[in-house]
Amino acid sequence: MTDAEFDAWCRQALDEVEGALSAWVPADAPAGLGEAMRYGVLDGGKRLRPLLVLAACDATRGHREAAMRAAVAVELIHAYSLVHDDMPCMDNDVLRRGKPTVHVQFGEAQAMLAGDAMQALAFEVLTPDESLVPLALQARLAGLLARSAGHSGMAGGQAIDLAATGQALDEQRLQDMHRRKTGALLQASVLMGAACGQADARAWQALSDYGAAIGLAFQVVDDILDVTQASETLGKTAGKDLDANKPTYVSVLGLARARERAAALHAQAQAALSASGLTAAHKLAMLADKVVDRES
Amino acid sequence: MTDAEFDAWCRQALDEVEGALSAWVPADAPAGLGEAMRYGVLDGGKRLRPLLVLAACDATRGHREAAMRAAVAVELIHAYSLVHDDMPCMDNDVLRRGKPTVHVQFGEAQAMLAGDAMQALAFEVLTPDESLVPLALQARLAGLLARSAGHSGMAGGQAIDLAATGQALDEQRLQDMHRRKTGALLQASVLMGAACGQADARAWQALSDYGAAIGLAFQVVDDILDVTQASETLGKTAGKDLDANKPTYVSVLGLARARERAAALHAQAQAALSASGLTAAHKLAMLADKVVDRES
Repeated sequence: MTDAEFDAWCRQALDEVEGALSAWVPADAPAGLGEAMRYGVLDGGKRLRPLLVLAACDATRGHREAAMRAAVAVELIHAYSLVHDDMPCMDNDVLRRGKPTVHVQFGEAQAMLAGDAMQALAFEVLTPDESLVPLALQARLAGLLARSAGHSGMAGGQAIDLAATGQALDEQRLQDMHRRKTGALLQASVLMGAACGQADARAWQALSDYGAAIGLAFQVVDDILDVTQASETLGKTAGKDLDANKPTYVSVLGLARARERAAALHAQAQAALSASGLTAAHKLAMLADKVVDRES
Repeated sequence: MTDAEFDAWCRQALDEVEGALSAWVPADAPAGLGEAMRYGVLDGGKRLRPLLVLAACDATRGHREAAMRAAVAVELIHAYSLVHDDMPCMDNDVLRRGKPTVHVQFGEAQAMLAGDAMQALAFEVLTPDESLVPLALQARLAGLLARSAGHSGMAGGQAIDLAATGQALDEQRLQDMHRRKTGALLQASVLMGAACGQADARAWQALSDYGAAIGLAFQVVDDILDVTQASETLGKTAGKDLDANKPTYVSVLGLARARERAAALHAQAQAALSASGLTAAHKLAMLADKVVDRES
C-alpha cells in the first residue's frame, strides 16, 4: 500500500465515521443536551481510535457494520472523557481542538450530562437490532469497550493521574498510569476491530501486543509534543502538563530518552504485526507510523 | 403470597444484591477510585430497581445469574446518576442516604470519575464470560440499559430538569421529564428482568405498561414525600425541590390531586399485571404497593 493509497483510505474512513457520528449523535435530545453532545464529538479530533478499529477489521476481514459501530462507540467514549476531563474540577481547560470546551460553551451541568449521555450512547450504538449486528458480537464489543473505559482502564488511569499531580512518579508508575488512561482504549480499539473479524489466538495476541505498544507510544509522543509544539499546532494549550506539574515521559526520562522510547514502542508494534500471521495488516502498520511521526 | 413471605423474599433478594455489589464493585481500583465507587453504591438505598429486575425475572421464570447481573447493573446506573446529580454544578447536595455525598467525602474530581467508572462497570457486569450468561442475552440487557440511561432516558430527563428550574411546567411537560429522568430506568428494570425469562409479546407489553406506571408513580410519591416528610425520614434534605423552585407534581397539581394521581397510576400498574397473562407476578404486584405506600 502506497502512502497515497493509505491517505485515500484514511480520508474515506474518516468521512464515513464523521457521517455515522453525525447520524447517531442525536440533534434532538432534550433541552440542548443533543447540541452539547454533538459539539463535544463532531468536527474535531484525529479519530485515531476509529481508524484503528476499521484497520483491524480490514486486517481480519471483519463485519463492516459492526466495525463502524465500534468505531463510533470508541470515539464517543474518548470524546466524553475529554468533556469531563476539561471541566473545572479536573483539568480546568478552556480550549480543545481550537474551540471553547463544552463546559465553557454550555455550562458545567450540561457538560457533565453530555459526557454521561455520550458514554451511554456508545453502548446504544453497539447494540442495534440483531439484523444489523449479530447479538453475540454486540456482547463481545460491549464487554471490550466497558472494560477499557472503566476502573481498570481509562477511568482508573485518570484517578491515578489526579493523585499524581505534583508527585514525582518513577517510570514504572507513569507507564501504569498511561497504559490505563490512554492505552487501554487504544488497545481496545484494535481488539474491537479484530473481534468483528476472524482472528485466531495467535493473531489476537499479536494485535493485543500491537495495541498495547501503540497505546503507550501515543502517550509518549503526546508528552514530547506538549513541550516541542506551539498551542496553535496542537489545537490545545501547549506546555499544560509541565505547568500543572504533572509527571510526563519528558519530565521523567528527558526529551532524548523519551524519543528513544517512542521509537522502541514503534518497533514493538511493527514486530507484533509481523508475528500476527495476518496478511492484510498494512493499514495497521501505517497507522503505527502515523502515531509516532505526527506533529499534533 | 403473604406480606411476611414477600418481606422475607425482599430481605433475601436484598442480601444477595448487596453481596453481589460488594463482590463486583472493586475495592482495589487505583488511587482511591474503588473506595469512592463503593461509597457511592454500597450500604444504602431502597434497591427498588434491583427488586424490580428480580421480581420480573421470577415472574417470567428467567435466568437467575443474568437477572442478578442486571439488578446490579441497573443499581450502578442509578447510583452513578445520584453521585453526579449531587455535585455542586448540579443540585449541590451535601447529604444523601444520611451520609455526606461522594464529592463532599472524596472531592469533585474523584466523584465525577467514580460516577463515570460506575456507568462503565454496569456494562462490565452485564458482559461476563459467556459460560455465565448467553451472549445474546448480554446484548439485549446492555441495549435496554443503555437506552434507559442515555439521552432519550435518564440523562435526557436530567437535562430537561436542569432547564426547567424556576420555570412553570405544565403537567404534560412535567410528566415527559419524569418519564425520562426516573421512569425510564425503573421501566428498564422490569424489562431487563423479563428479558432474562420467557415473556411473549402480550406479557412484554403488559410489563412495559406496568413499568411505565410505577415509574411515574414513584416520582409522584417522591414529590409528595418531599413536602410531607422530615429530612431524617428521607435520609436527604426535605423540601429541597420547593426551595430550589423546581416544578413538582405537588407544585403543579397540589397535594390532593397528586395523591389521586399516585393512586391512579398504582391501579394502572395492577391492571397491566392482570392483563399480562403471567401467573407468577405477585411480587411485582406487591412492589407496586410498596412504591405507592412508602414513607421514605
